Amino acid sequence: MPASEQTWINGEVATALPLPDRGLDYGDGLFETMPVIAGDIPWLGHHLDRLRDGLQRLGFPEDADHQARAHILEALDTRQFHGVMRLTVTRGSGPRGYAPIDRPRLHFVIQLSSMETVGQPALPAASIGRSSITLSKQPALAGIKHLNRLEQVLAARERQTSGFDEMLMTDNEGNAISAISGNLFLVSRGQLLTPTLINCGILGTRRRLLLEELAPALGFECRETTITEADVQNADEVLYCNSVRGFQPVGRYGGRCWQRYPTVYRLQALYRERLHTCGA
Amino acid sequence: MPASEQTWINGEVATALPLPDRGLDYGDGLFETMPVIAGDIPWLGHHLDRLRDGLQRLGFPEDADHQARAHILEALDTRQFHGVMRLTVTRGSGPRGYAPIDRPRLHFVIQLSSMETVGQPALPAASIGRSSITLSKQPALAGIKHLNRLEQVLAARERQTSGFDEMLMTDNEGNAISAISGNLFLVSRGQLLTPTLINCGILGTRRRLLLEELAPALGFECRETTITEADVQNADEVLYCNSVRGFQPVGRYGGRCWQRYPTVYRLQALYRERLHTCGA
Repeated sequence: MPASEQTWINGEVATALPLPDRGLDYGDGLFETMPVIAGDIPWLGHHLDRLRDGLQRLGFPEDADHQARAHILEALDTRQFHGVMRLTVTRGSGPRGYAPIDRPRLHFVIQLSSMETVGQPALPAASIGRSSITLSKQPALAGIKHLNRLEQVLAARERQTSGFDEMLMTDNEGNAISAISGNLFLVSRGQLLTPTLINCGILGTRRRLLLEELAPALGFECRETTITEADVQNADEVLYCNSVRGFQPVGRYGGRCWQRYPTVYRLQALYRERLHTCGA
Repeated sequence: MPASEQTWINGEVATALPLPDRGLDYGDGLFETMPVIAGDIPWLGHHLDRLRDGLQRLGFPEDADHQARAHILEALDTRQFHGVMRLTVTRGSGPRGYAPIDRPRLHFVIQLSSMETVGQPALPAASIGRSSITLSKQPALAGIKHLNRLEQVLAARERQTSGFDEMLMTDNEGNAISAISGNLFLVSRGQLLTPTLINCGILGTRRRLLLEELAPALGFECRETTITEADVQNADEVLYCNSVRGFQPVGRYGGRCWQRYPTVYRLQALYRERLHTCGA
């Protein structure tokens, strides 16, 4: 572990997770990956909103989101950090078996990793393949950032040998859902389109930012809809986004190449501007 | 943690898992839950076969199953234990992000828990509800005992408030797949039927034992097939099985009650006999 990493568990500096832990045993928990820019997490409220939704849907105790927020702020308070914070919340320990106990003592794991490039958009435009791993339909878990991520792990392994920068993930019906690590948007006839995430996928914080703030500010109409592979190939521009890399243009997918990304560049410029003016 | 519990990580007595760990981060790993009877794991080979399949499908290093076996035998060697062993194998640590490194140093976590009742069939017959959580279709992960178990956790939470002993889990099309913790079998017109597990579910070690050894020994024809809820309700007998509880008769499901379990009792008797004569 490099010296630039630091881990806390329930507020104490730690290097190891007490066992048993249901996060390890069953993936019974949630996480957030958050850029930290000069000691501040931009749009922290969006991360906490998604976390709260996840905690409720998994049936975690009611004050868990407040505890999470307190642990995040405590870790931020220690230094003017620049990098990435990962918060993992697990249902702590419990007896053997899938059923959780009523009042678990949760484990809040905070990991800070230095990263100079955080907050800077990655360029050049990405080359995207299509993953053979489809995202399975599970409305009970769709949208939230839970710890069951083997589909993404398998897709990431596939990407490693493919030579692509990222992979498009589709659902069982072949509709486009997301990148492995990021939400997908198309610019099509002056509209911004993004996949509906009722059955699978993660409701990204930058997806929300684009839908609620950036698109209206740029005068774009934005729609959540079903998106086919043909829609992707026929789009005027394609991009994906996540909180660490921001908004990334796609230069190539299937038989299609894109050369110009005027909308993505306008988005990136507006994002950079807001990134340095928004408070935590 | 009760005094009757003991944990080893990579052969060393431990109480905590070194972080970062991809098992915690993404559920990137597998597990086996194995009864230990007087220091021995019956049908250990079946557990290791399933583990090997899972390790290969997740792309773990080739000798991982041999390492797992060595750690299991080392832990068994320490005492004449009676209880349950859980082995968890994770892809160890790695850089931030879903993509694993090429040659990870795996984490082998072995947890021993005392349990007097292990190896004894649970009675009376179980009352079964139907879970509202459906098992999602994911052929890339079906069959193996990986660490992404939130569907089972949510179903177990539902069971806790339902008053049922167990829950029937169905797939997206409403076909019966399994109990939360166990494989499902029907006795129907002199045949044993069990759901096909190509798209979801876990290929249980006792399911395999029943298909390959116990059913033939009892003169039953056995078939993997699509099983509807109506098939369950119309069956002559219904049972589920796992390695800790053995073969458990179902006394009630939906509108149907069963009073007699002649086939399950024959199975249980044969199972008990073999349980105490088979080597590890």
